[in-house]
Amino acid sequence: MTNIKITIEYDGSGYCGWQVQPNGLSVQQVIEDAIYKITGEKLRINGSGRTDAGVHAFGQTATFITSSSIPPESFSKALNYHLPGDISIVSSCRAEEGFHARFSAKGKHYKYLIFNRGTRSPFYESRAYRVTRELDINAMKRACEFFVGTHDFAGFMATGSQVEDTVRAINALSIVESGNLIEMDVEGTGFLYNMVRIIAGTLLECGLGKINSADIPDLIRSKKREEAGPTLPAHGLYLVEVFY
Amino acid sequence: MTNIKITIEYDGSGYCGWQVQPNGLSVQQVIEDAIYKITGEKLRINGSGRTDAGVHAFGQTATFITSSSIPPESFSKALNYHLPGDISIVSSCRAEEGFHARFSAKGKHYKYLIFNRGTRSPFYESRAYRVTRELDINAMKRACEFFVGTHDFAGFMATGSQVEDTVRAINALSIVESGNLIEMDVEGTGFLYNMVRIIAGTLLECGLGKINSADIPDLIRSKKREEAGPTLPAHGLYLVEVFY
Repeated sequence: MTNIKITIEYDGSGYCGWQVQPNGLSVQQVIEDAIYKITGEKLRINGSGRTDAGVHAFGQTATFITSSSIPPESFSKALNYHLPGDISIVSSCRAEEGFHARFSAKGKHYKYLIFNRGTRSPFYESRAYRVTRELDINAMKRACEFFVGTHDFAGFMATGSQVEDTVRAINALSIVESGNLIEMDVEGTGFLYNMVRIIAGTLLECGLGKINSADIPDLIRSKKREEAGPTLPAHGLYLVEVFY
Repeated sequence: MTNIKITIEYDGSGYCGWQVQPNGLSVQQVIEDAIYKITGEKLRINGSGRTDAGVHAFGQTATFITSSSIPPESFSKALNYHLPGDISIVSSCRAEEGFHARFSAKGKHYKYLIFNRGTRSPFYESRAYRVTRELDINAMKRACEFFVGTHDFAGFMATGSQVEDTVRAINALSIVESGNLIEMDVEGTGFLYNMVRIIAGTLLECGLGKINSADIPDLIRSKKREEAGPTLPAHGLYLVEVFY
């Protein structure tokens, strides 16, 4: 038996999310079907975590245990042959016994893309959230530093989430403007449900002048969901990398 | 009568190219149909030039003369309402009498994208030419300078083209690497048919070690199509901007 780790890039537009669901096509299901085609094994793969419908990934990871004799490094090309164009196995390798994509993860890097223009772009319509109003990028940048560190992010969690401990550490948060594209990058040891999309929504409100960047520390301390910005749409979100 | 200039962004994957053709859907046709829907006029628009099937644009331009009373700046939003997601009118404005998208053009900026990775990407499969072998980026960069200037580019033209004067001026040519993406940008006063894709193919051969960068001057002087590199596929090419 071999433990295999795969790194997956996908355009999430056509899927109900990462996780297998009774209704709707998931990225996980499509990959499991491809594994069945090359190994004959009906197995379950373990992703580093779920991504919602429409969310994309440059570097989602998953592990699975196979009795196949296919060389670990060859899984990527063999699987890609059977996968649709919107899912690609970037690499595959042997993982140590006991290594688990989710439980062994030490942190994650997410990206949120905002496309800032009055007219839509054929290249970003399903791959970035479009904002037509002019944004104060410097205000968005100033707000970033206040998120870095260990805080109780109770106000940055989807209402109704059943998590007891809402303290999380953010290691880095940045905003970079490149033409009409505004890229938010965030790295942390763990994230609450919708946390990245709510941080993106809060930075956006700073850019729109609705929230004063200097008020972010108080806003975090309030722990109130209604004080933070909106949950931005899923299609601007990318899971970039899982750290081990 | 008002002369209107529109700037168009499109993903060319689903089209037979810019120009109206008897068989196949063209970008021009789809825009003319949208103009008919908002003005009731069956008119012909003049593009800055043709783009082949699969070629994309960030900044194609076109002009047309309308008797409609729609404000020139409002054409972009009105047209976008009727256009499919892969075509977007980025802006529209009134142009001076006699201004013509093609005949008034003073130069063009094209981009060619190479995606350099062993495995495909869901995000670039129809938007960049994928090369799996490792490339010597510095060799590609060194080759660029030899193209800049006014040269007889007879060897960088599709075989069978009926052009007498094959002298063209290239004002700038650069290679920038950004992750797995290699971006070639070229600006010139005019280009022969397939010239940008053949330059891209020649730079690629430099990156692969098949052509020595230092031999580019001799290669251009030979004026032989077979001395230059291959014509890279259309789906990596973007018309970025038309200069007036």
